[in-house]
Amino acid sequence: MKATLFTCILGFWLLLAVPGFGQDTLSGQLPGDLTAVQAKTIISAAEQHAMQLGITVNIAIVDAGANLKGFFRMDGSYLGSIDVAIKKAKTARYFNAATGDLGKITQPGGDIYNIEHSNGGLITFPGGVPIKNADGVIIGAIGISGGSIEQDEQIAAAAAKSIL
Amino acid sequence: MKATLFTCILGFWLLLAVPGFGQDTLSGQLPGDLTAVQAKTIISAAEQHAMQLGITVNIAIVDAGANLKGFFRMDGSYLGSIDVAIKKAKTARYFNAATGDLGKITQPGGDIYNIEHSNGGLITFPGGVPIKNADGVIIGAIGISGGSIEQDEQIAAAAAKSIL
Amino acid sequence: MKATLFTCILGFWLLLAVPGFGQDTLSGQLPGDLTAVQAKTIISAAEQHAMQLGITVNIAIVDAGANLKGFFRMDGSYLGSIDVAIKKAKTARYFNAATGDLGKITQPGGDIYNIEHSNGGLITFPGGVPIKNADGVIIGAIGISGGSIEQDEQIAAAAAKSIL
Amino acid sequence: MKATLFTCILGFWLLLAVPGFGQDTLSGQLPGDLTAVQAKTIISAAEQHAMQLGITVNIAIVDAGANLKGFFRMDGSYLGSIDVAIKKAKTARYFNAATGDLGKITQPGGDIYNIEHSNGGLITFPGGVPIKNADGVIIGAIGISGGSIEQDEQIAAAAAKSIL
Repeated sequence: MKATLFTCILGFWLLLAVPGFGQDTLSGQLPGDLTAVQAKTIISAAEQHAMQLGITVNIAIVDAGANLKGFFRMDGSYLGSIDVAIKKAKTARYFNAATGDLGKITQPGGDIYNIEHSNGGLITFPGGVPIKNADGVIIGAIGISGGSIEQDEQIAAAAAKSIL
Repeated sequence: MKATLFTCILGFWLLLAVPGFGQDTLSGQLPGDLTAVQAKTIISAAEQHAMQLGITVNIAIVDAGANLKGFFRMDGSYLGSIDVAIKKAKTARYFNAATGDLGKITQPGGDIYNIEHSNGGLITFPGGVPIKNADGVIIGAIGISGGSIEQDEQIAAAAAKSIL
Repeated sequence: MKATLFTCILGFWLLLAVPGFGQDTLSGQLPGDLTAVQAKTIISAAEQHAMQLGITVNIAIVDAGANLKGFFRMDGSYLGSIDVAIKKAKTARYFNAATGDLGKITQPGGDIYNIEHSNGGLITFPGGVPIKNADGVIIGAIGISGGSIEQDEQIAAAAAKSIL
Repeated sequence: MKATLFTCILGFWLLLAVPGFGQDTLSGQLPGDLTAVQAKTIISAAEQHAMQLGITVNIAIVDAGANLKGFFRMDGSYLGSIDVAIKKAKTARYFNAATGDLGKITQPGGDIYNIEHSNGGLITFPGGVPIKNADGVIIGAIGISGGSIEQDEQIAAAAAKSIL
C-alpha cells in the first residue's frame, strides 16, 4: 500500500519533471479498444497452440487502429515470418476479414487482384484473422506465420477466440 | 420515409450479393472515435480560417488510430504541403502533442533529436494539433500546411476546437 | 463588402510579413485544373451515392498533376481502403484510364503485367476513373474503395460526371 | 508424459505433411542467441519498471541478428513509439552500443552525423541498449519508448540485466 502510494507520487512527480513530452495516458486509447491484457492472452493461446502442433511461429497482434500491440517470435521460427505475421494482422484489420478469404479474390482475374501492392504491402493468404469482442465488434487482429497456411489459420482463429 | 426504407432494403440486398467481401460497418469504427461529420466540421473551419488570413493551405485529419479520415487542398496551395499536412496530423496523434511542441526537443542536442526518421517520416514544426472531444480525450489530430508555421498552427488549433 | 476588403488587405499584409516562405497562389495552379469546388462536388456526389447503396467507402480525388486534392472516409469504412482509394485515383490519372480497364492487361501474360510495382504501388482493379471537364479534357481522377468492385466503379463513374 | 510423447509424434507427422515448406527448427536459431524465454523475462521486467515509474511504454526486443523477437505496447502508450522502440532496439544491436551514446556523435559536426538516414531509419537518442549474456556477449537489444529519454534509458538498461 505504501509502496503503491509512493509509486503514484513518484510517477506524478516524474510527469511534472518532463515538460513538453509528458504522458497523457487517458487520451492514448479509446475505450473498447484491444487491451494489453487481451493481447497477452491471445499471444499465450497462440504459442501454446503452436507447441501442441509441434511447430514454431511468429505471432503479431494489432489493435482497432491497425497499430502493432504485441509481437512474439518462438525460438527457431522463420525470420521472414516476422514481417509476414505483422502484415497478416494488419491486412485482417484493414479489411475486417480473414486473410485467407481475401486471398480467394486476389488471384489473377480476381476482384481485387494485386491489392497486395497497397498499404505498404499486404499478405492475403491464410493466417490473419480479425479479433472480435463478445459483442462481435472487431477490436483488432492477429497474424500467424511460420507453419503451413492451414496451421497458421487454425492457430490464429483459435487464439482470437481465447478472450471470449 | 419510403425512400429510406427502400434504400435500407436495397442496401441489405447488395450486402448479401457480395460474398467474401461484404461490409461490416458495425465493426469498422470504435464508439468515440472521430466521426465523418466532425472531420467535415473541422475541415470547413480550417478552410474558412485560411481564407480569412488570405492564404491557401492543405488540411489533413486523422482519427484516433492515426489513420487518414479527411483531406482537402485549397486551390493554389503547395503540392509539397500535401504530405507535410498529413505527416503533421499523424505526428500530433502519434505523440499526443502539438508538432510545434515536439519540435522544441527535436533540435540538435534535443531530447528526441532526429525522431523524424521514425514512422515513415515525421514533421515536428508547428501546424499539427491533437483533436480532443468535450471530455478532453484525444480522438484524432489535424495537420495544416501551406502558410507560415504561425498561421498553420493558429488554423489547426482553432479548427480542432470547432467541434466543441 | 467592408469585411472582404479588410480581409484582402490583411491577407496582403500577412503575405508581406512572411519573408522566405511567402505564398504565390497565382502560380500554384494551372488554369483549367480541377478546383476545390469541383472536388467537393464530386466527393459529395460519391458519398450520397454510397449511402443510397447502403455502403460506406473511402473517396479520393487527385488533380491533373495526379496530386491528392481531396479525401474522405465514411464512418466504418475499411482502414485498408484509404490507400487503395488514393492509389486508384492516382493510377487512373497516371494512365488516363479507368483502373478496371488497365486491370485487363495487367493479368499474367498481359501487356503490362505487374505494372503495379511502379509508382510506389498501383491499383488496377475497378474503382478509379478519370475526371473530365465539359470539353472532355482530363483534369483529374477519382478513386473509390470500400464496396464491391462493381459498386466502387459505379460510384466513381457517376461522381466524376457530377461536375458536368 | 504421454501427452508430450503424443505431441512429439503428432508434430513430427505434421512436419512431414507439409512438403515444400517444412520447418527446420533446429537450424532456425544459433546456439546462444536470445531465447523466447529471455525475451519474455526482459519484457516483463520492463513493463513492471514502467508501472513503478507510473508511465506507459512501448517495449521492443531484437535478437543477435537484429530481427524482432518480441514487442509489447502498454495501454495508452504513444502510437508513434511503436516504431521508435523497434528502431531503438535495432540501432543498439546494429552498432553494439546504447543509442544515447551514438547520439553524441550524430549531432551536427559529429563523426557519424545523420547516420539515421541508413538502415531504413535509425533512432540515436537514449532508450536502446544491447542485451548481454553472463559472459558479456551481446545477444540482442532492447528499445523503450514512451517516457522521457531518461526513463526510457533507465528501463532499458535495467530490463536488459534481468536475465543475468
